[in-house]
Amino acid sequence: MSRHPIDEWEKAAAEVRTRLSATKVRARFEGNPMAELAPEFAELVQTVARGRSYANPTLDLKTRSLLTVACLVGLGEQPYIETWIANAMAVGATREEIIELMVQLFTYVGTPKAVTGFAAAKAVFDETT
Amino acid sequence: MSRHPIDEWEKAAAEVRTRLSATKVRARFEGNPMAELAPEFAELVQTVARGRSYANPTLDLKTRSLLTVACLVGLGEQPYIETWIANAMAVGATREEIIELMVQLFTYVGTPKAVTGFAAAKAVFDETT
Amino acid sequence: MSRHPIDEWEKAAAEVRTRLSATKVRARFEGNPMAELAPEFAELVQTVARGRSYANPTLDLKTRSLLTVACLVGLGEQPYIETWIANAMAVGATREEIIELMVQLFTYVGTPKAVTGFAAAKAVFDETT
Amino acid sequence: MSRHPIDEWEKAAAEVRTRLSATKVRARFEGNPMAELAPEFAELVQTVARGRSYANPTLDLKTRSLLTVACLVGLGEQPYIETWIANAMAVGATREEIIELMVQLFTYVGTPKAVTGFAAAKAVFDETT
Amino acid sequence: MSRHPIDEWEKAAAEVRTRLSATKVRARFEGNPMAELAPEFAELVQTVARGRSYANPTLDLKTRSLLTVACLVGLGEQPYIETWIANAMAVGATREEIIELMVQLFTYVGTPKAVTGFAAAKAVFDETT
Amino acid sequence: MSRHPIDEWEKAAAEVRTRLSATKVRARFEGNPMAELAPEFAELVQTVARGRSYANPTLDLKTRSLLTVACLVGLGEQPYIETWIANAMAVGATREEIIELMVQLFTYVGTPKAVTGFAAAKAVFDETT
Repeated sequence: MSRHPIDEWEKAAAEVRTRLSATKVRARFEGNPMAELAPEFAELVQTVARGRSYANPTLDLKTRSLLTVACLVGLGEQPYIETWIANAMAVGATREEIIELMVQLFTYVGTPKAVTGFAAAKAVFDETT
Repeated sequence: MSRHPIDEWEKAAAEVRTRLSATKVRARFEGNPMAELAPEFAELVQTVARGRSYANPTLDLKTRSLLTVACLVGLGEQPYIETWIANAMAVGATREEIIELMVQLFTYVGTPKAVTGFAAAKAVFDETT
Repeated sequence: MSRHPIDEWEKAAAEVRTRLSATKVRARFEGNPMAELAPEFAELVQTVARGRSYANPTLDLKTRSLLTVACLVGLGEQPYIETWIANAMAVGATREEIIELMVQLFTYVGTPKAVTGFAAAKAVFDETT
Repeated sequence: MSRHPIDEWEKAAAEVRTRLSATKVRARFEGNPMAELAPEFAELVQTVARGRSYANPTLDLKTRSLLTVACLVGLGEQPYIETWIANAMAVGATREEIIELMVQLFTYVGTPKAVTGFAAAKAVFDETT
Repeated sequence: MSRHPIDEWEKAAAEVRTRLSATKVRARFEGNPMAELAPEFAELVQTVARGRSYANPTLDLKTRSLLTVACLVGLGEQPYIETWIANAMAVGATREEIIELMVQLFTYVGTPKAVTGFAAAKAVFDETT
Repeated sequence: MSRHPIDEWEKAAAEVRTRLSATKVRARFEGNPMAELAPEFAELVQTVARGRSYANPTLDLKTRSLLTVACLVGLGEQPYIETWIANAMAVGATREEIIELMVQLFTYVGTPKAVTGFAAAKAVFDETT
C-alpha cells in the first residue's frame, strides 16, 4: 500500500467541500477548464488540497481560508481571491476581518494588488448583502 | 487635526515591536537600506503597518503574522518570509503550523515558491533549535 | 506633534490632484473599492503618495508621472498604466514620449508586458483624439 | 554591412508566418497596439523573433511553439498562450500534447496559472472543433 | 481502490529519476528543505510529477525537460533552471539547443529573465566541460 | 535595404555607451552570460536598445535612465537596478532624485520590492562616496 492515503483524503476532502459550500455566492469556477480537460488530475489536486491540507486540524479551516486569501493577494489572482473570501466567510470570517486583511497586506503588495484584493472583497460582499 | 492618529499609532507600533521582538533569531533587516536612505518615510511605513494594522485587534497578532507569511510566499520574498516566520513564532506559532502552511500554499504557488517558503522556515528553525 | 506633517501633505495632495485632473479622459477608478471599503486608509495612502511624493519638487510632476508609468509597465497593471499615462499627458507628456517609453521598456519586460503598455497608451489616446 | 542579416531574417520570418497561419482559429492580436503605435519597431521584433529564432532549425517549429507556450504559462499571459497553442496545433501539436503540457507545468506554477493555461487551451479547442 | 494509481506512479517515477540522474552536474537540491520538513508531501509531489507526467510518453522526456526549462525561465527561478537544463542534457539536449531556447525566450521575458536563463546555462555548461 | 538602420544604430549605441560609462562604479555585468553564449544576439539587443532607444532625443538620457530604474523596481531585478542607477548618475541624476524615486514607487510595489530598490541605491552610493 502506498504511504499516501488517497482514499482517506477523498473522504476528508468531501467534508471540507460541504463546509465551504455553505456560502451563498455563485461559484467562480463552474466549468473549471482544468476539471474539463484533465478531470482525473484536477480531482487529484482537489483531493490532496482539501483532504490533506484543509482537513488537517493543525490550522483551523477559517484561518486556512484567510491564509489562502493572503497568498492569492500576493499572487494577484482576482477570481481565486473571490472564491476564497467566499469560502472564508462560509466558515466564519467577517467583513471586518477581510477588510483588515487587505489593509494589512497593502504594505507588502502595493496599491494595484491591494486594490485587486479589495475589488474581490467588494464583489463577494455585493453578492451576500 | 488630521483624521489619521499618527501619534496613537506610534505608541501602538512600539508595543507590537516589543511583542514581536521576543524572538531569538537574528534580525534580517539590521541596516535596512530604506531606513538608512529615507529614515522618516521608513518610520512612517512602520508606524502605519504596526500601529494601524498589527495592533488592531480585529485579527490577533499570531494570525496576522501567519497571514503576512502567506502573502510573502505568494510574492516569493525569502528574507521577509524568514522575518515573519520568526515573528509568528515569537507570538505563539509552532513549527507544525508553519510547515502545514507551506504544504497548503504549494497548491497555489507551485514548487519553486513553496520551496522558498520551506527554505525560509528551515533557516528560522535552525536558529531556534 | 508627529514628525509626519500629514496636514501639510493633505494641502499639497489637493494641489497635485487638481493639476493631474486637467486630463479629459474618464477616470479609471471611480468607485475604487479600497476607497469604498477602507475610506480612511485609502485617503491616507493618497495623502502620502500625492502630498509627500508627487508634490515634492526634487522630481517634477511630468517626470514623476512617467516614472510611475514605467514602474507599472514592469508590474503589468493595465488600468493603472492608463491612469498614469492620462495623468502624464495632463501635465505635459506627449504621445511621442509615451510611445518612446514603451519601445524603451520592451527590452526589459518582453512582448506581453510591452503590448499591455501599448494597449494602455492606445486606450488613452483614443479617448483624447 | 551589419553582422545582423535583417534582410535574410525578413524572408525567413515570412515563411514562418505562413506555416503558423495555417491555423483556423481567429487571430488574437489583430489590431496589435504595438504594431499600430510603433509599426517599425513591432516589425523589427517580429522579424528577429520569427526570422532569427523560429526559422532556425536547431529546434523544430512544433517544439519551439510548445516551448513558447510553456514560457507564457510561467508568465501567466492568457491571450498569448492562446495564440501559441493555436500556432503549435497549426504545425502538428495535438490536443493530448497540449493537455499533458499543462498537467506537467502545474507542479511548477500552481493552480491559478495552470488553470489560466487550461482555459487558454479550452478556448482554442472550442474554436477548432 | 483509488482512481489514482500512486503505486504505479512510484515505479515509473523511479525510472525517470534514473534516466535524469545520468547527468554529471552536482545536484542543486541536496538538502531540499521541502523534503526535510515535509518528507511525505515532498515524496508525493515527486511521485506525481515524475510518475504521472514525465513518465507519460505523450511527450518525450527530452522535450518535457526543455518545456520545464522554458516555464522556469518565465518564472525567473535560477536554481531550478539549472537543474532542468542539466536534466535535459542528461536525456539528449545539446548546448546549441539550450542556447537557442534562451534566445527564443528573450522576446517574451525581456533582458533580466533571459540573462538569468543564460546564467543558468553557463553554470551547467561550466560543470560539464 | 532594410527599413531598420542597424548600422546607424551601432554608431549611436557606441556614443550612448561612452556617455553612460562615465560612471565610476564597477560593472555589474562583466562576463554577461548572454554576451558569452550568444554574442551576436546580445550585440543586436544592445545595438537596438542603445542606438534605437537611448540615443533617440524624444526623451533625454537622464530621464530614460531613471525610467529604466523605475521599470526594473517594478520587476524586482536588483543587479539591473544597480546598473541603471549608476548609469543615471553618470548622466546627471543625484542621490536625492534616486531616493525620491524609491519613496514614490513604494506605493505601487510595496515593501519588499521598494527595499530591493533602496538596497540597490545604497550599493551604488557606497561605491561612489
